[in-house]
Amino acid sequence: MIESQHPVRLLVHGASGRMGQALLRLADEHEDLSVVAAVARSKPAQRVIDGVPHFAVSELGGLPEFDVAIDFSLPQGFDVILALCVSRGRALVSGTTGLDEAQRKALDEAARRIPVLWASNFSLGVAVLNELVERAAAALPGWDCDIVESHHVHKKDAPSGTALTLGECAQAGGAAPRYAALRAGDIVGEHMVQFTGLGERVELVHRATSRDIFARGALQAAWRLAGREPGLYGMRGLLFD
Amino acid sequence: MIESQHPVRLLVHGASGRMGQALLRLADEHEDLSVVAAVARSKPAQRVIDGVPHFAVSELGGLPEFDVAIDFSLPQGFDVILALCVSRGRALVSGTTGLDEAQRKALDEAARRIPVLWASNFSLGVAVLNELVERAAAALPGWDCDIVESHHVHKKDAPSGTALTLGECAQAGGAAPRYAALRAGDIVGEHMVQFTGLGERVELVHRATSRDIFARGALQAAWRLAGREPGLYGMRGLLFD
Amino acid sequence: MIESQHPVRLLVHGASGRMGQALLRLADEHEDLSVVAAVARSKPAQRVIDGVPHFAVSELGGLPEFDVAIDFSLPQGFDVILALCVSRGRALVSGTTGLDEAQRKALDEAARRIPVLWASNFSLGVAVLNELVERAAAALPGWDCDIVESHHVHKKDAPSGTALTLGECAQAGGAAPRYAALRAGDIVGEHMVQFTGLGERVELVHRATSRDIFARGALQAAWRLAGREPGLYGMRGLLFD
Amino acid sequence: MIESQHPVRLLVHGASGRMGQALLRLADEHEDLSVVAAVARSKPAQRVIDGVPHFAVSELGGLPEFDVAIDFSLPQGFDVILALCVSRGRALVSGTTGLDEAQRKALDEAARRIPVLWASNFSLGVAVLNELVERAAAALPGWDCDIVESHHVHKKDAPSGTALTLGECAQAGGAAPRYAALRAGDIVGEHMVQFTGLGERVELVHRATSRDIFARGALQAAWRLAGREPGLYGMRGLLFD
Repeated sequence: MIESQHPVRLLVHGASGRMGQALLRLADEHEDLSVVAAVARSKPAQRVIDGVPHFAVSELGGLPEFDVAIDFSLPQGFDVILALCVSRGRALVSGTTGLDEAQRKALDEAARRIPVLWASNFSLGVAVLNELVERAAAALPGWDCDIVESHHVHKKDAPSGTALTLGECAQAGGAAPRYAALRAGDIVGEHMVQFTGLGERVELVHRATSRDIFARGALQAAWRLAGREPGLYGMRGLLFD
Repeated sequence: MIESQHPVRLLVHGASGRMGQALLRLADEHEDLSVVAAVARSKPAQRVIDGVPHFAVSELGGLPEFDVAIDFSLPQGFDVILALCVSRGRALVSGTTGLDEAQRKALDEAARRIPVLWASNFSLGVAVLNELVERAAAALPGWDCDIVESHHVHKKDAPSGTALTLGECAQAGGAAPRYAALRAGDIVGEHMVQFTGLGERVELVHRATSRDIFARGALQAAWRLAGREPGLYGMRGLLFD
Repeated sequence: MIESQHPVRLLVHGASGRMGQALLRLADEHEDLSVVAAVARSKPAQRVIDGVPHFAVSELGGLPEFDVAIDFSLPQGFDVILALCVSRGRALVSGTTGLDEAQRKALDEAARRIPVLWASNFSLGVAVLNELVERAAAALPGWDCDIVESHHVHKKDAPSGTALTLGECAQAGGAAPRYAALRAGDIVGEHMVQFTGLGERVELVHRATSRDIFARGALQAAWRLAGREPGLYGMRGLLFD
Repeated sequence: MIESQHPVRLLVHGASGRMGQALLRLADEHEDLSVVAAVARSKPAQRVIDGVPHFAVSELGGLPEFDVAIDFSLPQGFDVILALCVSRGRALVSGTTGLDEAQRKALDEAARRIPVLWASNFSLGVAVLNELVERAAAALPGWDCDIVESHHVHKKDAPSGTALTLGECAQAGGAAPRYAALRAGDIVGEHMVQFTGLGERVELVHRATSRDIFARGALQAAWRLAGREPGLYGMRGLLFD
């Protein structure tokens, strides 16, 4: 890893959205990160908010130097930030959903020139669980594998995307997972992967109690990605490789 | 790994002890294992029990060919089985406790000529947990780490040896674990290692409901060790390397 | 409650079956219980085993005095023990399954003259959970209720009978439970009833690790039933009323 | 219970505090409750906020009719609201801490004329757990009882007050609880009471993920208290009697 300049200088793209706001609010928890610019679609009401300079997308020319951009915007905003990162040779962390095939391809191509990470779930704990589940499955052939996930009653899909990803990790390790899903109250999200043998059992559990974990995970990813070699990274790889 | 002849031919040393009896009872669960000899200190009442030839330690000359020996005996019986394995060039799995320094050294030296595994806990699930705990700790710097273990009321030491080993794994990954111990009823053994961040938590749990898991794990270890290169192996390494 | 003579004198009917054997093996744990007779269908090989006099069903005339009979036999053996308890004015605990309608009716009628308890599950913990679930459900209207049960892979029915009974208790308290069932390894039996509100959750869990709990519960039931007023009792009522 | 007029008319005292703000924010979740007045120490910046009339303590003469007051204020504000409830013959729910002996006595005396509830913990789930723990302990004599609580790292006291109250409930049922306390991350609060017998175990767990549960519980208590007979009530009694 090439050491990046510390603190890592962060650009937040999609600053007016829910995730953008959380990123700006939580960045201070990380002493090695400094937000140097917040970019939103429209002109900011104030130029500087809580010490962070704000810009409209139309004002990218005036942006300061940065080491890594975090992008939680919309598909129509994605191309601009990707081009900016490539032209400046800086890392990009993106959680923007709904990208089309051309945008996916552009992301892959950019990864030849800059470090790029795109993820659907930025929780550190979930990334860790993915890794552990695959390793446990590989070490425990023949054990039964069950995945139980719990979410709030407003969640429509079941099993959750996270449960399905955990299941893929289990399968990559050789297990054949079965799923159960509970929908109750306002549970933020819980996933339990259980490996059962004869006379013993291993339970691997992740419990989320706040949606802030996604912003925190993205900040952590940005910090770990800055200064890496060009390439396409994932949350799990960033934590374990 | 050099493929060993299948089914793996197993010698059980310490056959009249509790573990030895469990090994003989459970070996049939494993279709790739075949017990070819059971060795105990004194002459067996019957020469063949449940199809398995029984021998006294004084009759080692008449032993059939085997691929791996499992030894759960006493320190005074250990030297004989180690020498036998070395002379025949066969693998040794031992869980004999109370070995003195000279015996430890002999074990290390034997490992230059045969594959050797000595362990204090043969549970597969615990070996997996050791590995997962170290990896989780390494991936989650700054998270709090707590270890809670529960055992039956007759267990005197606390935290359990297994909890301390889990703690060492957590420390190897950079965590600073704290311990809590419960003593209740006839709980065989449960260990929970919890990593807590902000807004999320990872819980890694092992639950044992039967002491047969130690015999099952030793059988699994024997099967995995047979035919390996000479060396000193551990449960965790055997599962993950 | 009328105090019965201590220690309570126990007759075990169905002594050669799996439950009968467990009852004879475990009765010693209970210092206020003394097994005075074991009755099986055929003549015993020995008249006295481990200090307990054994009888064939054909020898009931010679039975000693007893306070309570525990019956885990077959439908064809049930009538004899019921008649014996009624004629002697002694309590009966029965877990015999497959009783026909006439036998059920005879049981109800006997309950006018002697204390009678018939149950399908003698676990003390499950009886407690039934009670707690109904009370929690009644105190937490509007909370979501989920029941998750886990059993070994050989269990065919799902949800388990115990889970359904827990569900009835939840419904009696006003909840509308949903069920999930896991089948894995050799899990003896686990039941979790979860009540989820907004921002908080109550989980009520029973874990069985040994089938001996049914014999232990029946012994406890016998001890609590002896000397009670005539009537039809249940495990839950015996513990809580 | 005397049916109160529906929806129950609620006065919030201590409206500018953290709990007061939570009460005003969450009251809408409860369709049978209507906040008719919010009272704070100083004059409100606006007379009506989100449809709720606001008053200073100096303006109590102008207060509208109400059925029940919820008071989360300071000891110096307590006397006024207590006097108001007594003079109007209305119920009082209070969570104000730091009351002195004279105020405690005044509360007891008021309970002869109006329904009064004072509590240190307004969580519904915790109140339910208190009840269940005492009942389980009483039904399971001789079982081991362990209480494990987990809270954020900033919590200084251990075991938590809630854990100690659960322990008193267990003792009231005849158990002798032992305690373990974990301090990790930002855990809002978890309590597990475990009863362990031979071969089986009952676990009773409460998990809080939001501090809003205290405001929600106080609102629920107010709704249940309005229109009751005069007397001193507790959360547990309100839910179970």
